[in-house]
Amino acid sequence: MFRPEIKVIDCTVRDGGLMNKWQFSDDFVKAVYTSLSQAGVDYMEIGYLSSESAFKRGEVGAWRFCAEEDLRRIIGAEEKTIKLSAMADIGRIDYDDIPLSSDSSLDMVRVACYVHQVDAAIALAHHCLDKGYEATINLMAVSTVGLRDLNEALEDLSKSRVPIIYLVDSFGAFYSEDIDTLAAKYFERLPNKTIGIHCHNNQQLAFANTIAGIIAGINFLDGTLYGIGRGAGNCPLEALLSFLKNPKFRVRPLIDCIEKEIFPWRDKIDWGYSIPYLVTGVLNQHPRTAMAHMESKDKDRIVDFFDQVANTTEMV
Amino acid sequence: MFRPEIKVIDCTVRDGGLMNKWQFSDDFVKAVYTSLSQAGVDYMEIGYLSSESAFKRGEVGAWRFCAEEDLRRIIGAEEKTIKLSAMADIGRIDYDDIPLSSDSSLDMVRVACYVHQVDAAIALAHHCLDKGYEATINLMAVSTVGLRDLNEALEDLSKSRVPIIYLVDSFGAFYSEDIDTLAAKYFERLPNKTIGIHCHNNQQLAFANTIAGIIAGINFLDGTLYGIGRGAGNCPLEALLSFLKNPKFRVRPLIDCIEKEIFPWRDKIDWGYSIPYLVTGVLNQHPRTAMAHMESKDKDRIVDFFDQVANTTEMV
Repeated sequence: MFRPEIKVIDCTVRDGGLMNKWQFSDDFVKAVYTSLSQAGVDYMEIGYLSSESAFKRGEVGAWRFCAEEDLRRIIGAEEKTIKLSAMADIGRIDYDDIPLSSDSSLDMVRVACYVHQVDAAIALAHHCLDKGYEATINLMAVSTVGLRDLNEALEDLSKSRVPIIYLVDSFGAFYSEDIDTLAAKYFERLPNKTIGIHCHNNQQLAFANTIAGIIAGINFLDGTLYGIGRGAGNCPLEALLSFLKNPKFRVRPLIDCIEKEIFPWRDKIDWGYSIPYLVTGVLNQHPRTAMAHMESKDKDRIVDFFDQVANTTEMV
Repeated sequence: MFRPEIKVIDCTVRDGGLMNKWQFSDDFVKAVYTSLSQAGVDYMEIGYLSSESAFKRGEVGAWRFCAEEDLRRIIGAEEKTIKLSAMADIGRIDYDDIPLSSDSSLDMVRVACYVHQVDAAIALAHHCLDKGYEATINLMAVSTVGLRDLNEALEDLSKSRVPIIYLVDSFGAFYSEDIDTLAAKYFERLPNKTIGIHCHNNQQLAFANTIAGIIAGINFLDGTLYGIGRGAGNCPLEALLSFLKNPKFRVRPLIDCIEKEIFPWRDKIDWGYSIPYLVTGVLNQHPRTAMAHMESKDKDRIVDFFDQVANTTEMV
């Protein structure tokens, strides 16, 4: 399914960092950066853009901040052939701490927000646009948003200058039919915007739902190496590039990076399909209870988890 | 997506047995049988129906044969509330070794065949129908079958008395659009037949493709507990029942069985998504090379596997 407008965004460090507080070594981030560049991936989301006052360095790694000196260490002397993106959370970044894009190695800022934060997100995204960045708004947890609230948010977004709006399945709750329905709504309510999609793999549907998004006309596609990411993880980038069959992409550099850099993390953090993530996905709940369960020594006691979380009127 | 015609077939022992030569203990098979019965699953495919002369007992477990005395040990004294199915391979079962259904605990025989074996499969399936069984034909590896051969096979199947024909993605090569296209063809060419679907998870699409099949009108759905099965495994039964939201199904008994019976197998056999299975799926190849790689001590050397298997003109 070759469509030149399609852009692929790797979120390995940013979303994977949710599992280890962004405690990735520079060597790891450099290897990911190099392999993504070789693979022809369009954007690397290298972390979050945060004010230094918002978190303590040491408790969280450099990629919670994406300060220019951190980025410089990764890019090195060679010319950059991939765009860099950082995600910004409402309230974690002061406007004054965002450099002009001409002073930054970042190309794009993606503003993540819940539906009640849309106005604040638009203001922050406009601020980033005005400083010279590309900008997106990623409206999270839309699977829990009521119809009127969603329509109002999309109305506000349609009036904004933000050119790219993301459909985000934060809880891994969607089936392909949900993507069809929501993508149609986003396209209808957001004329002249580019739509993106970011999926989680609670029900083993992150890749399939990304494909459903592509078929619906969505052009900004998120993935991560071997699906690393919060909880059940994300759309596997290697599967996505294989599907796209665009001659600009190369899969082999991703496989090389998975072998050398991602495999060692399998022993340290636990992402990917598991029953607790399936359960919170089916129940359309935040995965925090499942993550806590998977980090406990009783992680294989999945019946206990089911009985704690699943109301028998919801899932039996 | 509640549709009363939908029937769910669990293939845990039959397809999972491809990974351990059906060396499951009676206690394991009994536990699966009990949990599927409690969950309201329609059929349990308990193994293959083979002549005793076709394999050596000891080299393969009882579930390569599904002899009546084996089945009896599992069912015990209580009344059966789930139908039992066995798969038959062409050439591995003599007609004379198939008992009358009135003398068997089996309810259904599913005949697996490649496209060149369709006539033999129809004859065997008719024989099973005549002995009183339900019967299906599962046309394997259809992702490698040319259009003319497929049309001819479907023409032959349409003239047969076999009421249920399966769309089988043996290599895990299909995307949802392939399922849409092929399901439409099966429905057009096989009027008055029920269509089934059996998917493999090489590209993390087994569940999604099963959903695509449901949307296309397919009513016989295969899954396995925690996706256990050959290579990348199958559609996870627990995800499928959660999706179906049919009040006759219960998910909790499946989760209980996964915890107690399936989890211990994770240390002994290696099924589920991995890069070698992705690669053979993308290349539309039999997974045997990937299975051999995953059984070797070098299973994490995925770049070596890629370089051996992927022709750079096919996947780069």
